[in-house]
Amino acid sequence: MSLRERVQTKLDQKTKPVGSLGMLEEVAVDLCVAQGVESPRVSRVHALIFAADHGVSREGVSAFPREVTAQMVHCIVGGGSAVATLARLHDVQLDVFDVGVDADIAPAPGLHVWKVGRGTQNLRVGAAMTAQELAASLEAGARALALAHDAGARCVVIGEMGIGNTTPASALLGAQLGRAASDVTGAGTGVVGPALQAKIEVVDAAIRRVEAVKDPRTLLAELGGFEIAAMAGVCLSSVASKTAVVVDGFISSVAAYLAVCIDPAVRAQLIFSHRGDERGHQVVLEALNARPMLDMRMRLGEGSGALLAVPLLRSAVEILEKMATFDEGGVSNRA
Amino acid sequence: MSLRERVQTKLDQKTKPVGSLGMLEEVAVDLCVAQGVESPRVSRVHALIFAADHGVSREGVSAFPREVTAQMVHCIVGGGSAVATLARLHDVQLDVFDVGVDADIAPAPGLHVWKVGRGTQNLRVGAAMTAQELAASLEAGARALALAHDAGARCVVIGEMGIGNTTPASALLGAQLGRAASDVTGAGTGVVGPALQAKIEVVDAAIRRVEAVKDPRTLLAELGGFEIAAMAGVCLSSVASKTAVVVDGFISSVAAYLAVCIDPAVRAQLIFSHRGDERGHQVVLEALNARPMLDMRMRLGEGSGALLAVPLLRSAVEILEKMATFDEGGVSNRA
Repeated sequence: MSLRERVQTKLDQKTKPVGSLGMLEEVAVDLCVAQGVESPRVSRVHALIFAADHGVSREGVSAFPREVTAQMVHCIVGGGSAVATLARLHDVQLDVFDVGVDADIAPAPGLHVWKVGRGTQNLRVGAAMTAQELAASLEAGARALALAHDAGARCVVIGEMGIGNTTPASALLGAQLGRAASDVTGAGTGVVGPALQAKIEVVDAAIRRVEAVKDPRTLLAELGGFEIAAMAGVCLSSVASKTAVVVDGFISSVAAYLAVCIDPAVRAQLIFSHRGDERGHQVVLEALNARPMLDMRMRLGEGSGALLAVPLLRSAVEILEKMATFDEGGVSNRA
Repeated sequence: MSLRERVQTKLDQKTKPVGSLGMLEEVAVDLCVAQGVESPRVSRVHALIFAADHGVSREGVSAFPREVTAQMVHCIVGGGSAVATLARLHDVQLDVFDVGVDADIAPAPGLHVWKVGRGTQNLRVGAAMTAQELAASLEAGARALALAHDAGARCVVIGEMGIGNTTPASALLGAQLGRAASDVTGAGTGVVGPALQAKIEVVDAAIRRVEAVKDPRTLLAELGGFEIAAMAGVCLSSVASKTAVVVDGFISSVAAYLAVCIDPAVRAQLIFSHRGDERGHQVVLEALNARPMLDMRMRLGEGSGALLAVPLLRSAVEILEKMATFDEGGVSNRA
C-alpha cells in the first residue's frame, strides 16, 4: 500500500462517513506525502517572505510608488503588516528576505539582507536579470528554506512584497502557458481602466519579446523578479528536504508553477491556500490542477492568504492524529 | 456614519490596497455589526451542538442506523469526534444538548439532557412535532445561547447530530422555497442510487403534504427536527443578545434560513463558514445571499466546518485591531 493509501485508510476508520471531511482529509494526505511521513508536523511553521523591486515598475504598472516596497518591508519586520499580524496570531515564525529592494533597509530581527541586486531591469525591453542573478535568487530561496528546516520547520509558507510584481508574474504565466496578456493580467494593487490597458500592453510586449523561449529557467531570468525566483527556489529545494510549501496568491502561485515546470516533482510538495481575486490566479491554479481551501477574494499577497491556511493544516493533522476511530468511539459503521 | 461604515473606514487606513483582504475585511465588519460594537470579541467561542432522532429515519433515508445518534453524542462528549477534536485545537468550549435522542445517554461533563421528546414523528405521514414541542425546541436553543452568553461568549458556533436529519432539512428547504425535492435532496451520509431516489420520494411526499402551509414556524413543526428547531432558536435569540452565530453546513444553514424567514433581523447575526458538498447547501446559501469563506467539499455536520472558520474570524479581528495604518507604518498611500 502506498503512503497515500495508508493515510486514507487511517482516515476512513474515523467516526464519520467516508470522505465527509472533504478537502480536510485530502490536505492531511497531501501533507503526509509532502513530508514523506504518516504523522506530519505543522507545529513549527516558518513564513518565508521575499522582497524585491522591479525595473518594470517605472512603466506605471502599479497603483503604488516604487518606494513602498522598502517601506512595506520595514512595516513587515516591524510587525505592523497583515502577514506579520497573522503570523503572530497563528504562531508562525516570520523570516523576511531582502533579495533585491532598491533601498537600504535598517537591520532588524527577522530581516535577512541577501540582495541579488537593487531591482531587476525593465522586462518590457530586455532580460529582467542575468543568468548569474537568477542562480543567486534560486539559491537564496534554497538557503532560506534550509534555515527554516534547520530550525525544525517541515512546513513553510511563501509570500512576497514587491511593488509592480503582478506584471512579471503575468508575463511569466502568459509566456509559459502561451496565453494572451489580457487573459493573465489583472488589477494588482488596484490598476483599472486605461492604466490596466497600459499594463496589459507591457505584459503583451514582454511575452512577444520572449516568444521563442521555451525553457522555464530562461523565462524566469527574462521575465521574473528576484523574489519570484527565490520563491521558485524554495519550491525546488523542498523536494529534497521533504518540506511542505504552502502557496499564497497569484505571484507565489506563478513562482510555484515555474518551479513545477522546471521539476515536476515539486508539485507533490505544494499545498494551495486560497483562490484570490487577481485575474491570472484562476489561470495558474488551473494549470497546476490545484483546488485551494479558501475562497475569500483576497489580493494582498505578502503570504497573507497562506497564513490563513495554517490553522486549517493544523486541523487536518489533528483529525488524522487525534480523532477516534469507529472502534475506539464505540460507534456502529453504516447500516 | 453607520457602524458598518466606521469599521470599513478603519480597515481602509491599514497598510494594504483598499479591499485587498477581501472577505477577511467583510467578516470583520459583519462581526462588528452582529455584536453591535467596533471591537468584536471572538476569544470565548462556544460550540452549541444539538442532537436528536427523527421518525423519518425509519424510512431508510440514512446510510447509518438510528442508534448512531446516541453513539455519536457519546463520542462527541467523550472528545473523540471531529467537532470535539477541532474544538480542543481551536480553544472553543463544546456544549452538547440532547434535545431528543431516542436513548438514555450517560451523564458527562458538557452534556445537557434537555429532551423535548425521544425523536420526532415520521414527517412523511404527519407533523414531525406538536406546537408545544416546537416551542420547547426553540426555547432550548435560546437557553443554550443564554448559557454561552452568560459564560462570556459573544460568538457561537452551531452544529448538529441526528441520523436522518438531511431529510427534514431538505423537506423544510423545499417547502419554504417552493423547490422540487430533487433540487434540495442529496446524499447525506452517503445515500446513492435507488436509496437516494427513495429519499427524494420521501422528501417529495412531505413537501406535498404541507403544500398549503406558508408560515415558517408551522413548517418547522411539520417538517423539522428538535435539533433543527433548537438551532433556529439560537439564531432567533441571537438578535436580542447581539451574539454572532457561525453557521455550519446544510442542516444548520436550513435552520438559520427558517429563523431568517421568521425574523429577517436574524440575517445580520449570521456568519457563514463553508460551502459544503450536500446538494441543498448551494440552494440555501443562495436563498440567504451568503458567501462562505471555506470551499472544502465537507459534508459531516456536527459543527465541524464552522469550527474551521473560528481561526479565520480571529484573524479578521486581529487585522482590525492590530494591523498598522499607513500613518503608523510610515508607508506612502497610492501613487
